[in-house]
Amino acid sequence: MAELVGNVLIGQSGGPSVVNNASVAGVVSEALNHGCVEEVYGALNGVAGILHEDLIDLAAESQQTIRGLRHTPGAALGSCRTKLKKQQDFERALEVFKAHNIRYYFHIGDGDAQENAAKISELAQAQNYDLRVIGIPKTIDNDLPGTDHCPGYGSAVKYIATTVKELAVDADAAGAHDLVTIVEVMGRNTGWLAAGASLAKRRDHPGDAPHLVYLPEVTFAGDKFADDVRRVLKKEKHCVIVVGEGLVDKDGNYVAVETSDAAGAAQFGGVGEFLKEIVETQVGAKVRVARLGIAQRAAAHLASKVDADEAFLAGQAAVKAAVSGESDKMVTLVRGDGDHYTCETGLTSLAELAGNVKKLPREWINEDGVSLNFQFYRYATPLIQGEVVVPFDNGVPSFVRLAKESVDKTLPGYEA
Amino acid sequence: MAELVGNVLIGQSGGPSVVNNASVAGVVSEALNHGCVEEVYGALNGVAGILHEDLIDLAAESQQTIRGLRHTPGAALGSCRTKLKKQQDFERALEVFKAHNIRYYFHIGDGDAQENAAKISELAQAQNYDLRVIGIPKTIDNDLPGTDHCPGYGSAVKYIATTVKELAVDADAAGAHDLVTIVEVMGRNTGWLAAGASLAKRRDHPGDAPHLVYLPEVTFAGDKFADDVRRVLKKEKHCVIVVGEGLVDKDGNYVAVETSDAAGAAQFGGVGEFLKEIVETQVGAKVRVARLGIAQRAAAHLASKVDADEAFLAGQAAVKAAVSGESDKMVTLVRGDGDHYTCETGLTSLAELAGNVKKLPREWINEDGVSLNFQFYRYATPLIQGEVVVPFDNGVPSFVRLAKESVDKTLPGYEA
Repeated sequence: MAELVGNVLIGQSGGPSVVNNASVAGVVSEALNHGCVEEVYGALNGVAGILHEDLIDLAAESQQTIRGLRHTPGAALGSCRTKLKKQQDFERALEVFKAHNIRYYFHIGDGDAQENAAKISELAQAQNYDLRVIGIPKTIDNDLPGTDHCPGYGSAVKYIATTVKELAVDADAAGAHDLVTIVEVMGRNTGWLAAGASLAKRRDHPGDAPHLVYLPEVTFAGDKFADDVRRVLKKEKHCVIVVGEGLVDKDGNYVAVETSDAAGAAQFGGVGEFLKEIVETQVGAKVRVARLGIAQRAAAHLASKVDADEAFLAGQAAVKAAVSGESDKMVTLVRGDGDHYTCETGLTSLAELAGNVKKLPREWINEDGVSLNFQFYRYATPLIQGEVVVPFDNGVPSFVRLAKESVDKTLPGYEA
Repeated sequence: MAELVGNVLIGQSGGPSVVNNASVAGVVSEALNHGCVEEVYGALNGVAGILHEDLIDLAAESQQTIRGLRHTPGAALGSCRTKLKKQQDFERALEVFKAHNIRYYFHIGDGDAQENAAKISELAQAQNYDLRVIGIPKTIDNDLPGTDHCPGYGSAVKYIATTVKELAVDADAAGAHDLVTIVEVMGRNTGWLAAGASLAKRRDHPGDAPHLVYLPEVTFAGDKFADDVRRVLKKEKHCVIVVGEGLVDKDGNYVAVETSDAAGAAQFGGVGEFLKEIVETQVGAKVRVARLGIAQRAAAHLASKVDADEAFLAGQAAVKAAVSGESDKMVTLVRGDGDHYTCETGLTSLAELAGNVKKLPREWINEDGVSLNFQFYRYATPLIQGEVVVPFDNGVPSFVRLAKESVDKTLPGYEA
């Protein structure tokens, strides 16, 4: 295969995660090892930056800044949720690529980002423009198919499980009266995050919190829920419940949705308050609701070292794959077969990802529907191991910001 | 002064804090240094345990457990919110003290606990029973008078400021559209916690979050608020707002109260949603609300080392004071005069505390009413320094639990 000489472009999209920027650091660090890579650019705010030719020079950033990305949450390049639809947009994107001799495009994101990239790549092939496109997975929801797990998931679970454990210790101090603590977590249509809260509990300590976990994969019924809570309160003096935001009833309807966004997608929220009402009216206990919200994807001070290292590795792997001739693939994380956890990277076709969601396997959920068995523990426990060392400055974590040196524009403006 | 030989009793009350148990560890560690102390007991669930003679033997706990209390949140002895009112209850309490030869009583708590203790002490004096009573302050709200600051405050602020900083980094990644992030924090009628969020922001970086801080000490006006938000959005693309739960309007009414508890005290909550509504209707920007909730007083994984060490010191100081003959006092934290932060302990009269609340000084708030000046930074910054090293086990923090070996009951039962 002929060496493809040219520039690298990196974009980020979708909701950030704690280790999103670690993948950017992985791409930048690896790219500069390869002679065929001339410049390393970033697109500001994902595809929006591509359409508007808002590119920055990542090679101009200091080594310290790139290293600091490994513990900085958010999306250092800025993110977006734009799904390109118009043919004109794809043509504009490719025009920008050509104008800046972009030959390697790495996008860190979930479904929509992967679809945008696949279509830009298709157009490039149609025009005989040599372009290699590799996706890097990222979602705390852990719902991308084709990969054992997604960078971002382990850190979110570490935060959720730690917080559930701390809230449970607080509730345990409340004295003799019945107390129910409800913790609402993200995860959209899958229960990966809610299930992850189980790691707060040792499997050999059935009295540990969380006592009950409600997952989108298990049909919700209010009566059974009230029974579950009564049963726990009878045994323990308090009951800690974790619930995934995308809980559904027997008709397949969400039990709580706040609103729909501009694109018509469900904006989840409120399932904690929904359960609170049932406990108050049917069980009659005091209830506290904690909605963990954005902190689940932003709590860098509690990132999993395994997760952050794998996110960096995924960035490096994307560059290695592209330089060796691969395109239209997404990097995957591949778990080793041994008893001791190991993880390597692999590749999967971008085309296979489109529109698919990986649910929590039903056989990892106990028959009671509200707890996870050893298969889930075996899967998730390795992903939250180790703590990323975050530097503290004057008592709070210190994060980096990119200098964002602009790349000169060469094209006329564009109205997206 | 004649040496007073007898037993120690420790009780905890009110909402827990991250360093509440560090004070228990301080009392236990110090008590065993003094020959006049024979046994060290704990009261389960505060005064409830005293009335019901539910005492445990703290000297029977392992050294490891007592050391582990220094990083374990909650209230290891159990807490309560009971304010004793009936003369009969005070007499019962003293009867239990006499039955177990309690000569030293240390209570870790806020207002009500200090009042209960003062009255038990008064009754002991009336009956010529030698008893020394010393209070140890504890409240994340930092609103106790007579002490420079309260154990628990520094850790809560460290958690709040860190979370605000992380949420701001996440919001900053959201792209070009206007985004308002509202963070609702505790603090009841004072703005100590809300003000503490300012430590996320460097005073020489005016663009840093939080951009606006709303305090119970400053009368809230919806129109000014909307103007404030518009001004920030114009300059920055996102606006991070921190608000104390006990915000009041020009008539002195809370702008948002959920309900009243059994005792008629306001149960705060909902001020974040209240501000959200104003932003959506009057400013027209997208809003995210984060209500930090119980995690503010439970997030032991992010405890301030200065705070935890001072809480331990306060426990030690209580014992030293009592052994040397003091009674009816509360331990205080006394800041040194020098430029370099130092802290010693002092004593204040329990009687002076009753019903008094220490507000955030108006002169520490800038004229804009929504930011803090150098005096607040000078006050609060030292309190969040250093990180307590919490042991992690399988990816989550490891906390200790007391073995709670019961002390034999010698009295008939009691109906409180």
